[in-house]
Amino acid sequence: MTIKEVTCCAPVNIAVIKYWGKRNKELILPTNSSLSVTLDQDDLRSTTTARLIESAGADQLWLNGSQVEITPDSRLARCLAELRRLRAQVEASATDASEKDELPESRRALVIVSENNFPTAAGLASSASGFAALTFTVAQLFELPMPAEQLSCIARQGSGSACRSLLGGFVAWDMGKAINGEDSGARMVAPQAHWPDLEAVICVVSDAKKGTSSTGGMERTVQTSPLLQHRISSVVPARMAEMESAILSKDFDKFSELTIADSNQFHAVCLDTNPPIFYLNDVSRAIISVIEELNRSSRLAGKGTVAAYTFDAGPNAVIYAPRSEMATIVSTLLHYFPLAGSFDDPKRYLQKKSSNLSLPAGFNMNVTPIWPQGSVHRLICTSVGDGPRVLSTEVGKGLITLEGSPRSMLNGHK
Amino acid sequence: MTIKEVTCCAPVNIAVIKYWGKRNKELILPTNSSLSVTLDQDDLRSTTTARLIESAGADQLWLNGSQVEITPDSRLARCLAELRRLRAQVEASATDASEKDELPESRRALVIVSENNFPTAAGLASSASGFAALTFTVAQLFELPMPAEQLSCIARQGSGSACRSLLGGFVAWDMGKAINGEDSGARMVAPQAHWPDLEAVICVVSDAKKGTSSTGGMERTVQTSPLLQHRISSVVPARMAEMESAILSKDFDKFSELTIADSNQFHAVCLDTNPPIFYLNDVSRAIISVIEELNRSSRLAGKGTVAAYTFDAGPNAVIYAPRSEMATIVSTLLHYFPLAGSFDDPKRYLQKKSSNLSLPAGFNMNVTPIWPQGSVHRLICTSVGDGPRVLSTEVGKGLITLEGSPRSMLNGHK
Repeated sequence: MTIKEVTCCAPVNIAVIKYWGKRNKELILPTNSSLSVTLDQDDLRSTTTARLIESAGADQLWLNGSQVEITPDSRLARCLAELRRLRAQVEASATDASEKDELPESRRALVIVSENNFPTAAGLASSASGFAALTFTVAQLFELPMPAEQLSCIARQGSGSACRSLLGGFVAWDMGKAINGEDSGARMVAPQAHWPDLEAVICVVSDAKKGTSSTGGMERTVQTSPLLQHRISSVVPARMAEMESAILSKDFDKFSELTIADSNQFHAVCLDTNPPIFYLNDVSRAIISVIEELNRSSRLAGKGTVAAYTFDAGPNAVIYAPRSEMATIVSTLLHYFPLAGSFDDPKRYLQKKSSNLSLPAGFNMNVTPIWPQGSVHRLICTSVGDGPRVLSTEVGKGLITLEGSPRSMLNGHK
Repeated sequence: MTIKEVTCCAPVNIAVIKYWGKRNKELILPTNSSLSVTLDQDDLRSTTTARLIESAGADQLWLNGSQVEITPDSRLARCLAELRRLRAQVEASATDASEKDELPESRRALVIVSENNFPTAAGLASSASGFAALTFTVAQLFELPMPAEQLSCIARQGSGSACRSLLGGFVAWDMGKAINGEDSGARMVAPQAHWPDLEAVICVVSDAKKGTSSTGGMERTVQTSPLLQHRISSVVPARMAEMESAILSKDFDKFSELTIADSNQFHAVCLDTNPPIFYLNDVSRAIISVIEELNRSSRLAGKGTVAAYTFDAGPNAVIYAPRSEMATIVSTLLHYFPLAGSFDDPKRYLQKKSSNLSLPAGFNMNVTPIWPQGSVHRLICTSVGDGPRVLSTEVGKGLITLEGSPRSMLNGHK
């Protein structure tokens, strides 16, 4: 019996058809299907190291540098129990007599250390990438012989949208029908390489107010919004089909139309909740106005849609656009929402441009005033990414020192 | 033939079940019924003087001190034509031979002067009280023998919600079925005196941004919101019935629940519009948070609902509450949203209170920060009011001088 260790990372995903509402809270089964774009792990990721120690005992977990207790009824405990159950199945069918007397892996204790390379304060959903990384890492450690689609049903029980981070590219989460949730998981609609022209910029918006949690919020919406049922039964199914075909045909106009409509409808059902839930603030609304005005003036000039915006359960905007439009989008955002610090432009959008705005003719500059510096405090430029990656299988090379304590790998690997 | 003149005033009304969507744009027939509370004209009103001059010719109109051209296709022209048509019917059936050779009133020119006693900048819908005052005044001048309910169908063609300002108290606008709109007008659910305990405070919220017009906004919602049809067909009919019975039984808890839900749903369908329409800003959202927290903590303490909020097509809040709760509400609002000027407290809400806040036990003071002075720039305290009033039938005693020019009566009568 030896110490085993695996380190993996998993990506963030941002939905373009939104998940909002559970039909089963324990298994996290959604009231509607959803669809997301996996973002590049080179930019945003959760990294997890899981180590199997040589004895049984309580599992230990460190999250972003702090030790976290794994309470018995927690979602985390549920994911780990499910992974152990699958490992025990593997062990039961194993015929290798040499391991017979050893403590089986499914009964050995785990030490898990996980961290995000983006600040939680950034307001980006870290639970999706976090539970995806944890599920994927432990599955690697246990050498579970199952595809990512099946693992996604485990990650889903940690955090619903985590299931979509088990795959790269464009990912549907089919709501499924089975009572045990076995058909409610991720499915790749198109791989990362399918639409290389599509990129994303995240506007991190300052917000003093602590928003409503997703879990509590969606439960309240399910219980009180008269409009949600109509969204679930009559709007989303058609939108899912249209979105899949827009992605397969790389039709950005349609992709944008659906993405924008679904983001706004998600926030509409939040507002239709009692008490109402607000995630957008005045800066979010101003970003919407700027993007809508870019699209309006571009179409007026006989050109296509410039950008699609979408907002999750917070004030941050995620803007998807073809690479050719990013110089215009980023320079326009920087004009109306000057950063407090500098914009480092990792994708060199502004390299070939003068610092002047290059806007569509007919763009109404008065669409919003110029906001106080720092109202948007960061722009993160990224692209479509792949699924979880194995970074290391060597003991001591990940987030756990040889001695067994947590170690940060922030800036340690790209 | 002599000069005739009438001066009347008409109230503002604020809907608790919202009108949003036309099924016929010319006749202004709505996609759903709505229900409003008429506010007291002692506080907010439109005043109109209409004078019949001794000759035919073009009508003349002054609105809030500025002359306004009456274009042939305008809603104003439509209202006046309708009133003249009804006057001509009266004339056709008249048997009084002495007036036979005179120019009939229906063919004489009108001079109309109208003004509101509240600034347009206050963002309060002035078109409802304005068109109600105009319709009522000209109907008085023409001595039209019809009830306010029937006149409301004329005012409706000027501005939909104007029909509800033809009556006092609690007023339904039944959407009707007739193609010509004859059954789409106001109906009194309960008179002013029915619920004397109910009062209102209007929070006038500063907003730099010019909002989307109601007319353009509701047209866009009808065309693009997938949720609106569900609201129209499945939500509003039941809410109308529940609201009427809440009013008849003076059930403030239910009145508040429905008022809040319908305001939020109206703003939800605005957000579900393409491009989305925003009327609430961060100050509006903060007012909502404060009122929701008052209600939550009051219920937690075993008491009833403190207040109901509703927002029309702008950031201003209208808060309905029992008189006994107004001291708490107003002092709480003044705490979180300090005015730039003083609060004159016409209803003496704060008279018997110390200046300290008297909040329900368990009220979370951190519900919102204290906002910069002037974020709410005025509180207007008012109550449920009556319908249009005739102020004068003497020539020269209204908003038109004997010589025929407009004269302001602001502060002239209470």
